[in-house]
Amino acid sequence: MTMTNSDPIKITNTEIAQEFLDKYDTFLFDCDGVLWLGNHLLPNTKEILAKLNSLGKQLVFVTNNSTKSRLSYTKKFASFGIEVTQDQIFNSGYASAVYVRDFLKLVPGKDKIWTFGESGVAEELELMGYETLGGSDARLDEPFDVATSPFLANGLDEDVTCVVAGLDTKVNYHRLAITLQYLRKENVHFVGTNVDSTFPQKGYILPGAGSMVESLAFSSGRRPAYCGKPNMNMLNTIVSAKKLEKSKCCMVGDRLNTDMRFGVEGKLGGTLLVLSGIELKKGLWKLPKNIPDQNITLKS
Amino acid sequence: MTMTNSDPIKITNTEIAQEFLDKYDTFLFDCDGVLWLGNHLLPNTKEILAKLNSLGKQLVFVTNNSTKSRLSYTKKFASFGIEVTQDQIFNSGYASAVYVRDFLKLVPGKDKIWTFGESGVAEELELMGYETLGGSDARLDEPFDVATSPFLANGLDEDVTCVVAGLDTKVNYHRLAITLQYLRKENVHFVGTNVDSTFPQKGYILPGAGSMVESLAFSSGRRPAYCGKPNMNMLNTIVSAKKLEKSKCCMVGDRLNTDMRFGVEGKLGGTLLVLSGIELKKGLWKLPKNIPDQNITLKS
Repeated sequence: MTMTNSDPIKITNTEIAQEFLDKYDTFLFDCDGVLWLGNHLLPNTKEILAKLNSLGKQLVFVTNNSTKSRLSYTKKFASFGIEVTQDQIFNSGYASAVYVRDFLKLVPGKDKIWTFGESGVAEELELMGYETLGGSDARLDEPFDVATSPFLANGLDEDVTCVVAGLDTKVNYHRLAITLQYLRKENVHFVGTNVDSTFPQKGYILPGAGSMVESLAFSSGRRPAYCGKPNMNMLNTIVSAKKLEKSKCCMVGDRLNTDMRFGVEGKLGGTLLVLSGIELKKGLWKLPKNIPDQNITLKS
Repeated sequence: MTMTNSDPIKITNTEIAQEFLDKYDTFLFDCDGVLWLGNHLLPNTKEILAKLNSLGKQLVFVTNNSTKSRLSYTKKFASFGIEVTQDQIFNSGYASAVYVRDFLKLVPGKDKIWTFGESGVAEELELMGYETLGGSDARLDEPFDVATSPFLANGLDEDVTCVVAGLDTKVNYHRLAITLQYLRKENVHFVGTNVDSTFPQKGYILPGAGSMVESLAFSSGRRPAYCGKPNMNMLNTIVSAKKLEKSKCCMVGDRLNTDMRFGVEGKLGGTLLVLSGIELKKGLWKLPKNIPDQNITLKS
């Protein structure tokens, strides 16, 4: 289903598909739920990407997954036999690091970043020269005790001026408690990689980054600056890096509340909703008209 | 500082204290931050409680701590040399169990309860005859994997009709993920022990029950029924059990957003704010007038 300012249109034949393709020179693809589900490539993904490449379309991959770095993402594409360069990939960890550098203007070598999240977040920050603390530090795996936590023993690190928080499947009370101590300091910024409440995995819907960031927001009484879709921090990062003409761009995704919203609020030329991921038909009552009755893939 | 419908009054001399004491026949005490801080009894606690007892006042202890059962609480009082019976104690775990029994009318022996929280919650439910799952089950301490979690292997337990969630310092992804699976079922009720975002411990402010319940609320897209202060579920439980005349009751606490709100919204005769716990003077701008300039304790 494609959306411009007008009503959604369902792509049902080659003619509509061709007209759709002609409108855009750049396609921004969400990854999980669109190209693959977890470790399973979805049908026709390779063929569609090859077709778009052959038509000279620019492809950009935009994901709210912050657990992997951009480099790890190129390897994931390669494992499916798809060649993609690092500069085509924009994940929420990278967008958060760009936000820290370009918007907050924190200084590598001076400002340190406390991370709550998996290695992807810290890797992107470290590639920009920031020293990071927290994250996957094994000492945080230990049970929390205010009397023995090594992160409290000598007081908080005064050089930490920002918390970047995202999905962490190693979430525990130690990580939550120490992150809260930093968030209680007024001079420490609060950045969330992405607001997704859940993500799909092997037929289950699991707690997403937003569910952890919102826990920290509630305990600290603060609001984070979210960087992933649908936040414009992500779009600004991409538009600036790729020098895009927004009216010629189409966002392809599987979620109404992140991907489609991202394309619409970012005033991209169009959006394409696929039904291979999180959005099931029953969720589509939120859309104005033309409820599709089957999964949609681009005809190649 | 005492509050009725009029402006707050600071207790500064014996005359004001006497007038204050004469007004009420029952005192509802918050515990942590009022009687003690963690494992340290606050000065004059024993003397004040003894004085109130000698005046024939009824004492009730109301705490949002859900990690301990009421029985454990009597032992904590005893460790300080204070004799208190179990029926004087109302904690948020007990209030949640009463809510499950009297409001949701779930049936012991038939309905099972999934708990996210420490032993106090499950103990109170089990004392009422409910079978509980989750909680401190050691299998939940293992890293989460959808393929191997024993809580998913044979599907969810169809007899679970309620999730009760509270503070759990053993919070991890396994607990969050399985609890979410139950919350995604429409027929499963969602009860939160208490909304406290934080609690004080040994000079630190740590993440509270609310920060965990709100994480589950965000991932599930549902709102919990909170049972602790300031929710009226707690007050209804106490009033009904002790057959109280509300106008003759005074709530004594250290938090504006739970204790004082509980007393005011519950239309108790009055409230007494002590400054020995979480509420520091700088937070008191939220009160209408008469900012106190020192800690307040009842003169005995």
